[in-house]
Amino acid sequence: MNVFYIPSADTGLTVLPEEESKHCVKVLRMKEGDRFCVTNGAGYLFDAVLVDALPKRAGIELSNKRAGYDQWGFQLEIAVAPTKLNERMEWFLEKATEIGIDRVRLFTSFHSERRAANVERFQKVMVAAMKQSMKSRLPVVEELVSFEKLLKQPFEGRKFIAWIDGSVTSQLCDVYRKGENAIVLIGPEGDFSREEAELAMTQGFEPVSLGDARLRTETAALVACHTVQLINQMR
Amino acid sequence: MNVFYIPSADTGLTVLPEEESKHCVKVLRMKEGDRFCVTNGAGYLFDAVLVDALPKRAGIELSNKRAGYDQWGFQLEIAVAPTKLNERMEWFLEKATEIGIDRVRLFTSFHSERRAANVERFQKVMVAAMKQSMKSRLPVVEELVSFEKLLKQPFEGRKFIAWIDGSVTSQLCDVYRKGENAIVLIGPEGDFSREEAELAMTQGFEPVSLGDARLRTETAALVACHTVQLINQMR
Repeated sequence: MNVFYIPSADTGLTVLPEEESKHCVKVLRMKEGDRFCVTNGAGYLFDAVLVDALPKRAGIELSNKRAGYDQWGFQLEIAVAPTKLNERMEWFLEKATEIGIDRVRLFTSFHSERRAANVERFQKVMVAAMKQSMKSRLPVVEELVSFEKLLKQPFEGRKFIAWIDGSVTSQLCDVYRKGENAIVLIGPEGDFSREEAELAMTQGFEPVSLGDARLRTETAALVACHTVQLINQMR
Repeated sequence: MNVFYIPSADTGLTVLPEEESKHCVKVLRMKEGDRFCVTNGAGYLFDAVLVDALPKRAGIELSNKRAGYDQWGFQLEIAVAPTKLNERMEWFLEKATEIGIDRVRLFTSFHSERRAANVERFQKVMVAAMKQSMKSRLPVVEELVSFEKLLKQPFEGRKFIAWIDGSVTSQLCDVYRKGENAIVLIGPEGDFSREEAELAMTQGFEPVSLGDARLRTETAALVACHTVQLINQMR
């Protein structure tokens, strides 16, 4: 089933955005009367039918508005230092969208090898993943900020920092409790500096381990995301 | 710390395989006396020192033989239908190696879009991931076989099939018990056919869900792998 994205779409007659129209009419060669699915990225899915096959502004009719399956009763955010290789970051964003995440925050850190991020490109990766996995909610990617600025951003819930330090004994999977809002900070290749980790702790972040395995930055970010989702999934 | 791979290495004087020698002497420009780490892919790590900087057969001395941190008391295998895009399969193999897996089995299935696999290439991806994540054990990738043949292969432990069917109510994270050997079958894009799923069940495979999220094949394979590792990691 093809899925199209129309921000804040609602039931009734509307048009597909230009890019989506092109994809629908030119690429997929859909004809009037063809049916597909629409997500509004804000929690709802719709049945859609093409009523006017214009290549730049395809007219469609939306019906059967329903909440998506991707509703969870908690807020899950991962804050990560962008990896040196962009493709690894984009891979994380795609997989986190599939598994389920609310927001990704980006920060630069003492050991960061990358100090710029194409947030628009990152958001596009998440839109594609949302459509592919038939999600109704589009995760948000925040602009890149300094680590100090990140720590000052408000967050209502458990705050964790995944820190690769021998002295960190509590594991995320043991201290996180089902239903809690959570944000997990994931450091760059080379990890957080001790000063950064200690600063985070003074701001209320609990140091946690993700286990014994030595994980790449993007793998650690995904493991943290799946750990929280899995604990909430368990009966 | 640089890690090199010498199959079945042991303490004492030895030489690096040709490719590893080239990487050590030509690429990394190591000099006699330089130190690094060696994994034998069979559970052990060693301290190593370069004693003879030959570009094709570098002489090294191994000491301090020790078991790697990647020892778990159970067998974890994922059997997966190779994805249409090879890079998605290679991504899964890299990440599964980082997170921890013993064996990957490959099979063709009714809905498989890819019916060939470069196992040698896949194994190389896992060698690179093993070295990068300082693992002491190299996961095995088996040759591609038919689904019917796969089901006949012996396995001592819990056997699961991740089947996307509304009637499947038990989740892997609820039915898998810490310490159990487990193999999880992951279907291709398009999932298993009903006949395949039913055939697997007659062979003792328990149908399980990985949750509500609609996951790509390679994501489902990684989620199954991490689910088993996480349950074993919990205190």
